[in-house]
Amino acid sequence: MAINGTVRPGLIQLKVLDLDKTLDFYKDILGLDEVGRTSDGRVMLKAYDEFDHHSVVLRKASEAGLDYVGFKILNVAQLEDIKAKTEKFGYKVTEIAPNTEQPGFGKQYKFTLCTGHEFHIYTDVEQAKDHPQLRNPDIWNKPPKGMRATRLDHFLLYGPGIAEAERFMVEVFGMYVPEICNTPDGKRLATWITGNNKPHDLAFVEYPKAGKIHHVGFYLETWEDVLNAADLIAINRLKLDTGPTRHAITRGKTIYFWEPSGNRIETYCGGYFAYPDSPQRVWDADKLGRGLFYFSGEMIPSFLEIVT
Amino acid sequence: MAINGTVRPGLIQLKVLDLDKTLDFYKDILGLDEVGRTSDGRVMLKAYDEFDHHSVVLRKASEAGLDYVGFKILNVAQLEDIKAKTEKFGYKVTEIAPNTEQPGFGKQYKFTLCTGHEFHIYTDVEQAKDHPQLRNPDIWNKPPKGMRATRLDHFLLYGPGIAEAERFMVEVFGMYVPEICNTPDGKRLATWITGNNKPHDLAFVEYPKAGKIHHVGFYLETWEDVLNAADLIAINRLKLDTGPTRHAITRGKTIYFWEPSGNRIETYCGGYFAYPDSPQRVWDADKLGRGLFYFSGEMIPSFLEIVT
Amino acid sequence: MAINGTVRPGLIQLKVLDLDKTLDFYKDILGLDEVGRTSDGRVMLKAYDEFDHHSVVLRKASEAGLDYVGFKILNVAQLEDIKAKTEKFGYKVTEIAPNTEQPGFGKQYKFTLCTGHEFHIYTDVEQAKDHPQLRNPDIWNKPPKGMRATRLDHFLLYGPGIAEAERFMVEVFGMYVPEICNTPDGKRLATWITGNNKPHDLAFVEYPKAGKIHHVGFYLETWEDVLNAADLIAINRLKLDTGPTRHAITRGKTIYFWEPSGNRIETYCGGYFAYPDSPQRVWDADKLGRGLFYFSGEMIPSFLEIVT
Amino acid sequence: MAINGTVRPGLIQLKVLDLDKTLDFYKDILGLDEVGRTSDGRVMLKAYDEFDHHSVVLRKASEAGLDYVGFKILNVAQLEDIKAKTEKFGYKVTEIAPNTEQPGFGKQYKFTLCTGHEFHIYTDVEQAKDHPQLRNPDIWNKPPKGMRATRLDHFLLYGPGIAEAERFMVEVFGMYVPEICNTPDGKRLATWITGNNKPHDLAFVEYPKAGKIHHVGFYLETWEDVLNAADLIAINRLKLDTGPTRHAITRGKTIYFWEPSGNRIETYCGGYFAYPDSPQRVWDADKLGRGLFYFSGEMIPSFLEIVT
Repeated sequence: MAINGTVRPGLIQLKVLDLDKTLDFYKDILGLDEVGRTSDGRVMLKAYDEFDHHSVVLRKASEAGLDYVGFKILNVAQLEDIKAKTEKFGYKVTEIAPNTEQPGFGKQYKFTLCTGHEFHIYTDVEQAKDHPQLRNPDIWNKPPKGMRATRLDHFLLYGPGIAEAERFMVEVFGMYVPEICNTPDGKRLATWITGNNKPHDLAFVEYPKAGKIHHVGFYLETWEDVLNAADLIAINRLKLDTGPTRHAITRGKTIYFWEPSGNRIETYCGGYFAYPDSPQRVWDADKLGRGLFYFSGEMIPSFLEIVT
Repeated sequence: MAINGTVRPGLIQLKVLDLDKTLDFYKDILGLDEVGRTSDGRVMLKAYDEFDHHSVVLRKASEAGLDYVGFKILNVAQLEDIKAKTEKFGYKVTEIAPNTEQPGFGKQYKFTLCTGHEFHIYTDVEQAKDHPQLRNPDIWNKPPKGMRATRLDHFLLYGPGIAEAERFMVEVFGMYVPEICNTPDGKRLATWITGNNKPHDLAFVEYPKAGKIHHVGFYLETWEDVLNAADLIAINRLKLDTGPTRHAITRGKTIYFWEPSGNRIETYCGGYFAYPDSPQRVWDADKLGRGLFYFSGEMIPSFLEIVT
Repeated sequence: MAINGTVRPGLIQLKVLDLDKTLDFYKDILGLDEVGRTSDGRVMLKAYDEFDHHSVVLRKASEAGLDYVGFKILNVAQLEDIKAKTEKFGYKVTEIAPNTEQPGFGKQYKFTLCTGHEFHIYTDVEQAKDHPQLRNPDIWNKPPKGMRATRLDHFLLYGPGIAEAERFMVEVFGMYVPEICNTPDGKRLATWITGNNKPHDLAFVEYPKAGKIHHVGFYLETWEDVLNAADLIAINRLKLDTGPTRHAITRGKTIYFWEPSGNRIETYCGGYFAYPDSPQRVWDADKLGRGLFYFSGEMIPSFLEIVT
Repeated sequence: MAINGTVRPGLIQLKVLDLDKTLDFYKDILGLDEVGRTSDGRVMLKAYDEFDHHSVVLRKASEAGLDYVGFKILNVAQLEDIKAKTEKFGYKVTEIAPNTEQPGFGKQYKFTLCTGHEFHIYTDVEQAKDHPQLRNPDIWNKPPKGMRATRLDHFLLYGPGIAEAERFMVEVFGMYVPEICNTPDGKRLATWITGNNKPHDLAFVEYPKAGKIHHVGFYLETWEDVLNAADLIAINRLKLDTGPTRHAITRGKTIYFWEPSGNRIETYCGGYFAYPDSPQRVWDADKLGRGLFYFSGEMIPSFLEIVT
């Protein structure tokens, strides 16, 4: 099949401080739908244009940040193949029983990268009740609300050893690397990685502390929707990080802000249509300001310094 | 690799009546760049956001219509594999020597489907001189002009035996089929097929005459660009077929018109982000009007009847 | 004052067949807010960005169509001046007592044009409870819903003697005429008239039957909102007339459809910013198709023939 | 007439350092057309959607900044009336002979406000050769280029005594004041003033130095055009001030930057449709950050400090 192996980043579990208040943000402002709660009180959500049971999980905790991210694999054979290759690559893999950690999900495996991030992989997932229509479908079931997030899109992870992590994503997950940023001495500073036609499914920035997340990105349809997201940030007095702006890297049109628990959110549209046969784009570290914040050409200190 | 085999529909050769006048359309109105001419007088063009040497070829002829379409394959091994599978499927394959039919292209194979359409496959292509930048890239080299077409996107082909053609695209090209339309007795009336995250790379409609093309689609970035295309259709007194409108099928936002030689062009944006694990959407033939022309819900006779 | 006399078309009363079903359209789909009901059961509504008590009134009747339209005058002196000039022009003027026909409205006058349309004029209006904010205002009070209509914008009226009606609007209402369409023998076929920077507050088409309305126009912010309106027309299975399209006349970007009672609605954005010192645009009758439906350049029969 | 007296801010003369380089910006990037040069070497320009002979004049000088702004008055009687009222208000008025200071302009008057700004008023202006079409018009004569500025829109002036200047604009120019910002002790800090349906034709900020200009604003059609302007700022390495963002004041969607000579330019779209009967919006000085930069809610120091 022309697309196979790793289909997409399809799951993230975030730690939040005030579950009710933060949940209100994800539902009423970001526009996700609550799918249900786990027996241990976590909340499962999905975007209106996603088929799978859920894509976002919120867990009440004493600090914001990431528990794990998950990737959907196309079929069982490929799931087992990636599991075997992961072990061969050197990461210890543990099985998660169906319908335990993730209601609606079949067999899962988990392992931790050198960067300190826990990854889950899975293939069997029940479809959400409120999935997009299939027979003579209308374009949505009910009007998209709030920021009208269409899907969980990507994450930017901070941690040590991203050159190895990049190699893992290519060799084991079968992804490719549309853009990289190197330091003057040729070391990887940042890498944008994808398994499909999005310019990134995930990205890594080299960072001394392990297991950190910079932001989780949700996809919006248009630049008008980025404006709508910005208006909702303002009206709801959320803390803006930066935007609306454009990245030269990925070409995405975007805005960054913090949800009430302090996790950074990106709502994003556009970006070029990536192909694995296109040559890699390369950024010099001293041009990263232009690459990230195309209009000003200048780095924003908070963008590099604040992670959870 | 997560994307492999058939990368994209990357080539189309169209027959045009008045080469100069029609070329003016493709360059000044649609916004392609002329790459050069072949020794036998054909004109090669590409969209501003494409890397490969060229994607569109115009050949002067006594009637409008299609010569052939081409698909890029990720690497040589997969090219040979698809060649072998094509022969096994039952189609006779002929080799085209490098830099003959297509300057800048390496080895190509050609064969004809049961629907009467000639397909080319290839993997080695020189990069165009004016390709997107790679080192600390800006978002374009010069301002996109006219309709600002970003890439050759897809084609809709009319011919007999589309169920077999669909099976070929899946079994040999490794594609999947996000949407289909069946007659009440369960026969395939139309099929939308893709090898990546676009909702279609190509589509077929069942039709008694072989080798016909309904339209070639070019991708625009936004609904504002569809409006700009519509304004250019009006100002240049091109013949509109229909639009701006939305398809429920693919969800694309679109406008159709005829270029000066009478080939139907679609300029298109949006569409959902397709995944091979999403369930197939199914249209009943009596709902096809709604599927194609979502706002009116009614079929447009010219849309079904006029092909070249 | 640089703007004075006739401030805007601020009121319309429409006849509807099924009050509840039609009201659902105006509230949930068009996006107006219900302000209240009159003692005789009419429903008053307003758009979210309007200050005045209400702008749209629905009255249950046995057929669709227009009761009357109303224009707000800047102050009492000008109201009385226009009343006097109207009588001098030859139309009989009747006073309507405050808070009778229109709760929240002060003194009104009414009269009937030669075209058979009843016009009301007024100046004192209570502000709606839910008007736009005034102290350190946010951009809206609650998220605009449905089609996100921002205001009652304009009407197109059909009737006999529009040359006189145009003269009345200029001489008595102090308006100007940005665009006209004449028949080959120089008679007025259509006229677009405004008292401010909109390209039209109202328009007339010459027609043998008196007192007819072609459509009432509501303003949307953007072409993306026109798309959203089109999607809502489709999803709610409203009957589309035509669009999305652009008028060359006014340059508006627009879509036309019928609400459940059969009154034609236009949801419209853009249009040039009109000034009284700009020269008048003139359309020949045989170019009216291009003027109205810029992309196809062809008249749509239903557009000329169906009025209520 | 419903609109009369002061029709619009129709003229600005700016000082520029490097005439050729700065002219390239105004033509190729902002998208104005050069109309011609005065005998003393100044360059006259206009936007594609303006009728009058020119609206922007560039004069080579040793520093950036403002020479004067001009307002078009509807007719001769009103020009003389405003001239007389200006003298009565206490400002000395001087006549400028036709076709001297401004080729294509008839009689002009000039005077200086208490804020130190020179204002010109005029009524007779030749139409530009390349004005918008009038007979069966297309929507433009040639494709709008660069940032696609449609018109000179407004200016923000800094100087002392803006309460008096506001009173002058209301009493003499017949304008109204949609929004104001006061200090805690009730003094006027800023005022937004208009003579039509734009939320501002000009604005003043209280400032100790006389005759300063903060920015000149040009109107763009859409938020997509603001993005295009931002992309052009980036690609041409112009110095960004801030944006894309939204003002809560006026609701405009906007971006600010400096042209090569150091004059600040705003390219702006949207904004509410102002009416003289709408109540005035009032901003507290400590909310001005939110009023100007709606998404962050925070003042940008450069925005208050840098004027020319």
